[in-house]
Amino acid sequence: MNAVNDSSIIETILDEERVFEGHLVKVGKMNVTLPNGEKAIREVVRHVGASAIVPLDTDGQVTLVRQFRAAVNRVVLEIPAGKLDSKAEDRLLAARRELREETGLEADTWTHLSDIITTPGFTDELISLYLAEDLRQGEAQPDDDEFLNLVKMPLSQAVTMCQTGQIDDAKSICALLLAQKALDGRK
Amino acid sequence: MNAVNDSSIIETILDEERVFEGHLVKVGKMNVTLPNGEKAIREVVRHVGASAIVPLDTDGQVTLVRQFRAAVNRVVLEIPAGKLDSKAEDRLLAARRELREETGLEADTWTHLSDIITTPGFTDELISLYLAEDLRQGEAQPDDDEFLNLVKMPLSQAVTMCQTGQIDDAKSICALLLAQKALDGRK
Repeated sequence: MNAVNDSSIIETILDEERVFEGHLVKVGKMNVTLPNGEKAIREVVRHVGASAIVPLDTDGQVTLVRQFRAAVNRVVLEIPAGKLDSKAEDRLLAARRELREETGLEADTWTHLSDIITTPGFTDELISLYLAEDLRQGEAQPDDDEFLNLVKMPLSQAVTMCQTGQIDDAKSICALLLAQKALDGRK
Repeated sequence: MNAVNDSSIIETILDEERVFEGHLVKVGKMNVTLPNGEKAIREVVRHVGASAIVPLDTDGQVTLVRQFRAAVNRVVLEIPAGKLDSKAEDRLLAARRELREETGLEADTWTHLSDIITTPGFTDELISLYLAEDLRQGEAQPDDDEFLNLVKMPLSQAVTMCQTGQIDDAKSICALLLAQKALDGRK
């Protein structure tokens, strides 16, 4: 990679005004100074962040969740995931909790795959991605307003579904493809 | 994959109230009926959508962009991308325009990799991902408030940077890993 000097592209954030205060998201309007000295306004959706998990059993099967997502008005096939309780929450603990709540699974072996920023053009949401192995099955305990169907399939099939568009959720594509690479790297 | 009956997880959207009207994003509050008959409120960030491109030259090098993202208050290394002019805009035309504007590149061969939903827990944003090949170099024409540094590296290095966390933008990880798989599939 070429060496890069970023001084010509840095914006300076002057202030941020809260323009919407929701339960799930907050929206801010920031005044920024552009690299050329001009002023501009940037809108930002503040989100607490989340953890998401690829639960992989010893037969090479992953457990996915089908969940209705009102934002896109349809059911989405995703890896198990859930919001942090707070920005400060330990992300691995959140992953353990969400995996248990959504699927009933507990895992003895955890591998951090990556932390992704979901869409930095307008939100600060960061999702920590994990591979969970050495699974034990307990009882799922979804939230009161959370309705899920669990689906099991080979990881290789889930990866193919990322390529065909049948899995289109970005965090799930990132995590499934990175999990496959992590497993390939062990061979 | 197991056959799945989703009737027990479908929510019904009753109405949506606009609570924030921005330039980049709009925020809606939806009243929904849950599968158990209870009512709930869902917040949604409406976004016009985008196209994003992996520009790959005949030497196996991709062109990436470094861009300051105010939402995360830092420079992010990403594939070239840009918003649609409208929901109805042809996504491939938008991809051609954004690639030309951000990098000056034009491509004769376009492969659709996938359409991803960036984070369906709270937004309807959909990004169409393309692999662009048979490139010709012209003059970049970034928007007035857009400041970019271009970076070239082998696709294999970009993929490694997705695994190490040096590339953490979700659309870029999805597109780079899917591009690599598409190229592997040709062999």
